[in-house]
This record gives sequence, C-alpha cells and structure tokens, in this order.
Amino acid sequence: MIGSNVQIQSCPQVIATCDSLRAEIQTARREGKRIGLAPTMGALHAGHLSLVQACCQECEFNVVTIFVNPTQFGPSEDFDRYPRDLEADLAALSPYPVDLVFVPSTDEIYPSGFSTAVEVGRVADPWEGASRPGHFSGVATVVLKLLNMASPDVAYFGQKDYQQTVVVRQMVRDLNLPVEIRVCPTVRESDGLALSSRNAFLSPDERRQALALSQGLKLAEELARSGEQDAGSIRQAVMDRLTCEPDIQVEYVAVVDPQTLEELNELSNPTLVAMAAFVGPTRLIDNQLIGEYVI
Amino acid sequence: MIGSNVQIQSCPQVIATCDSLRAEIQTARREGKRIGLAPTMGALHAGHLSLVQACCQECEFNVVTIFVNPTQFGPSEDFDRYPRDLEADLAALSPYPVDLVFVPSTDEIYPSGFSTAVEVGRVADPWEGASRPGHFSGVATVVLKLLNMASPDVAYFGQKDYQQTVVVRQMVRDLNLPVEIRVCPTVRESDGLALSSRNAFLSPDERRQALALSQGLKLAEELARSGEQDAGSIRQAVMDRLTCEPDIQVEYVAVVDPQTLEELNELSNPTLVAMAAFVGPTRLIDNQLIGEYVI
Repeated sequence: MIGSNVQIQSCPQVIATCDSLRAEIQTARREGKRIGLAPTMGALHAGHLSLVQACCQECEFNVVTIFVNPTQFGPSEDFDRYPRDLEADLAALSPYPVDLVFVPSTDEIYPSGFSTAVEVGRVADPWEGASRPGHFSGVATVVLKLLNMASPDVAYFGQKDYQQTVVVRQMVRDLNLPVEIRVCPTVRESDGLALSSRNAFLSPDERRQALALSQGLKLAEELARSGEQDAGSIRQAVMDRLTCEPDIQVEYVAVVDPQTLEELNELSNPTLVAMAAFVGPTRLIDNQLIGEYVI
Repeated sequence: MIGSNVQIQSCPQVIATCDSLRAEIQTARREGKRIGLAPTMGALHAGHLSLVQACCQECEFNVVTIFVNPTQFGPSEDFDRYPRDLEADLAALSPYPVDLVFVPSTDEIYPSGFSTAVEVGRVADPWEGASRPGHFSGVATVVLKLLNMASPDVAYFGQKDYQQTVVVRQMVRDLNLPVEIRVCPTVRESDGLALSSRNAFLSPDERRQALALSQGLKLAEELARSGEQDAGSIRQAVMDRLTCEPDIQVEYVAVVDPQTLEELNELSNPTLVAMAAFVGPTRLIDNQLIGEYVI
C-alpha cells in the first residue's frame, strides 16, 4: 500500500475520459476506499493544494480534476486567457498521494448535443450571480457532472469562492447527492492577498492596489470587533478603502447572512463580508466571516 | 433467498424518508445486488406493473416509488384530483418481489428552502413541454432526486410518456448518471386505449370517444405501410380522426424524429407519431413508432 502510494506520488495517473474515470473509481469503490474529489480549473496555487492536502489526509482514493469550464465564463470574460499549464500543475501535485488527475477535453464534458443545465435558485442569484449571469448554472452543472462521474464520499472547495460553496451545498441538499462538501479556508500571501490564479495577471502596481481587498476585510473585522453593528456603515468603510485606489472598480461589497446571502441591516453572528472588484483589467474576489467572536 | 422473497411478495416494505431509502439501498449495494427502480405516481395499472415486472425480472433489489410530484403539474392542471389510493397500489404490487416501496411526503422531497431545478433543454421544449410549461423541469428534477437517492443500476419508464423517456435519457447522458434507462412498451386495453391513471376520469361516452387516439395511431401506421411518405398528410389524417369526435379537443399531433422530436416533412424510419388531446375535461396522451418495417 505504501509502496503503491510512493509510486503514485512521483507520477499521478492522468486520465482524460469520463469512462476511464468511472472505471478507476469503480475499482477503488469495490476496494472499499473512501473517495475524495478536489475539482479545480488548474493553474494550481497553494489554495488549491490545501484542498488536495485535506483530500489526501481524509480520503483513501484521491481525485483531482483540472478543467477550465467554459460554461461558467461569460462571453466577455477571460476564458480564453485563463492561465493553463498542465505540466506545472502535475509538478505541483507530485508531492501529494493523488491517485488520479482527470483532465478532460471540453468535448468530453460537453459532447455534441449536450443541453442540460442545473439552476440552483435564490442563493445563486445575487452578488457573483448578478455580476456574472449564467456563472453558477455553469458551475453547478459541471460540479454535478463531476460528482456523478467520480461519486466521491467527500468533495473539497475553497472558501475563497464563498458563494460557490453555498450554491454547491444547496444543490447537493436539493438533489439528494450522497456527498459531503468540505470547505477549506482561503489561503493568503503574507501581506493578505488571497491566492487566485488570476493574480498572475496583476502588474506590480495593481498587485499593490489589490491589497485593498483584504485590507477592507480586515477593516470590517476591526469595526465589528470594536462594536459597530450597522451593516451599512461597515459596507461603506470597506467601499471607501477600495475606492481610494485609482485602478480599482468595485462591483459589489456585500454584508450578508452567510447562509442566505441576503443583505443585513445589523450584523448577524457571524456575518459574511464579500466583494468583487476589477483591479485594472483583472476581476478579483475576496470574503471573510466576521463577528464569530461575539457571544 | 427464495424464502425472503416470498415474505417480501406478501408484504413489500413501505418507507417514507430519503434517509431510510438510502440506508436500505446501501445494504443491498453492499450485498452486491443489482438495483432496479420503477418511479411512479401511484394509481397503478397494468402499464406500471409491466415496469415493475421488468424490474423484478432483471434486478435483485427492486424499488418502486409512489409520489405524485407537484412540480410537474401546472397551476391549472389536475394535481389535486390526480387519483391516489395507496392501499390499492400496495395490493397491486403484492404479487411482485418488490423489496421497497418508497412513498415520501411532499415535504420529504421538497423540504423548506428547496430551490434547485434541472432544465434539460431542446428535447423538453416542444409538444408536452410547450403544452405544459415547467412540466419537464419538474419531471427531470424529481427523477434526478430519485436516481440520486436510490442509485439504481436500471430505472424503468413507460413508452406511453414517450417524450419523458427522451428527456430522462438526455439528462442521464448530459449529467453522466451511472444508470441504464429501460423503456417498456405501452400497455393497452383490448380495444386499443392506452392505459392511463387518468382513464378513470372518463365517462362511458368519453371512454368511447377516447378510442380515436389509438385509432388515429393505427391509421397513421396503415398509411405509412401503404406507402404514404408525407408527414403532413399523416398528421392531417390523424387530426381528422380525432376531431370527428365531438368532445375531443386536440392539443397537438406530432409526426417527428423519435430522437430529436423535431417535425418531419418526410417520414423517417422509424417516425414517432404522438398526440395530446382533451377528451371532455381529461387530458390524454398517446404515441406510436411507425415505419420500422420499412427497409
């Protein structure tokens, strides 16, 4: 067992077809192994790798998927220029006992005639859903397909895409999917910037301005800690921190219930502060739960 | 094994919760049994029972579901008066080695906060989809839930709901569901009337007029057999047969490609003829594949 893991660590098996994924999973399932899935769009950074690590710690057959899903990008978004580097991704995965890396083509996931979509409803409507029409339908549909193919016991997502985790959990509950959704904390640079594959697009000056996002979240936390209970004041303080940067265009700052994603007047415990902003041409998101220390 | 089946035949186990369904299925799965699912809305007739029979012949753990799914009924449709008789249904199932009858409440299937829907796209748009907006989204969503709960190897549907079988197959393919969809032939009365739970609503005179549906299909088949290749002529002949009954209001007569459900100019081989009509206040559907004998 250890011997086979060592072999796998040095060279994870890369597969490209749904049929081969299912066949490998079926074998692992028959062996009674606990199956973990970490779905990614590649361009792997330490945030993704924290999902992979959690997966490998908790499961016995570990599947990472790398698929830049076209249906979750809008027509004017960065699907074409989204970073892709399979070789670097496989190198980044090599220290982990990943059993399978599933790297399907677009045609493999969306063959000719494909026409089905999952609509998750209310929690997918505001914020990212409003800024990126169709985004969460694309996310939910591809996640459902991956879950159906890999039938994992546990699937791993990052808190960085907070609303995505709410949407996926809603879908899992509503569609009676037999999978546990695990959310791993956002991984940040030492100066606070949340890791994102899109950070690679930032110029040094944009990189400096982008700190306004995490600093806005810190500010929100400090305000809440110091007794501010008015959601509007917190929202405005975060907004002010963002808009003082010349190349930042704010899409939204949300101060919301972490489960319903509905806007709050007074802070709940905890409260989610989430934001999306363009830093130059690059769209970044970040979020944080605040107020957990109250009571 | 035989002993336990005999016991089950006399009294199938009725369960009401998703959790208990999943637990029972998990046990059967661990025992390596081939699992079959026959989803129904109850009011079981010989058509449903032909699905149950096929299921019991081909599978080793047989699940029948009885759930009148509100989301596939339009607001002006007959959800409230749809026939329900659990006792009679269980009696009808008693000759078959059914292992589980799943009879959930509406709240069990759609708990508070439920908000997800599956949209299957093109094949769900015309005919029944156009006549009954939202119908196929309701069907696809509940079928997906049942498939996820029961994780059957095979699921059984009747050809009577032809478009439903096309929609379900499209969903299964698009969402990579690991299940085989089996379609069983329409069961008819000796005079040709397709069995339907809604036939119970027909007065004796309406029952007589309702024969126009199956007779229209026979007429279409005879025309095709005698060399008629023009889809419009066949459609018109069926329409004429229906409209000569005073209490029949035709919703559609479709002469279509059996896979795409797109209208044909010339017959394909085979061609699907499908229809929906109100007979008095009762909406009936019927269909038949014609032209399979050509070549």
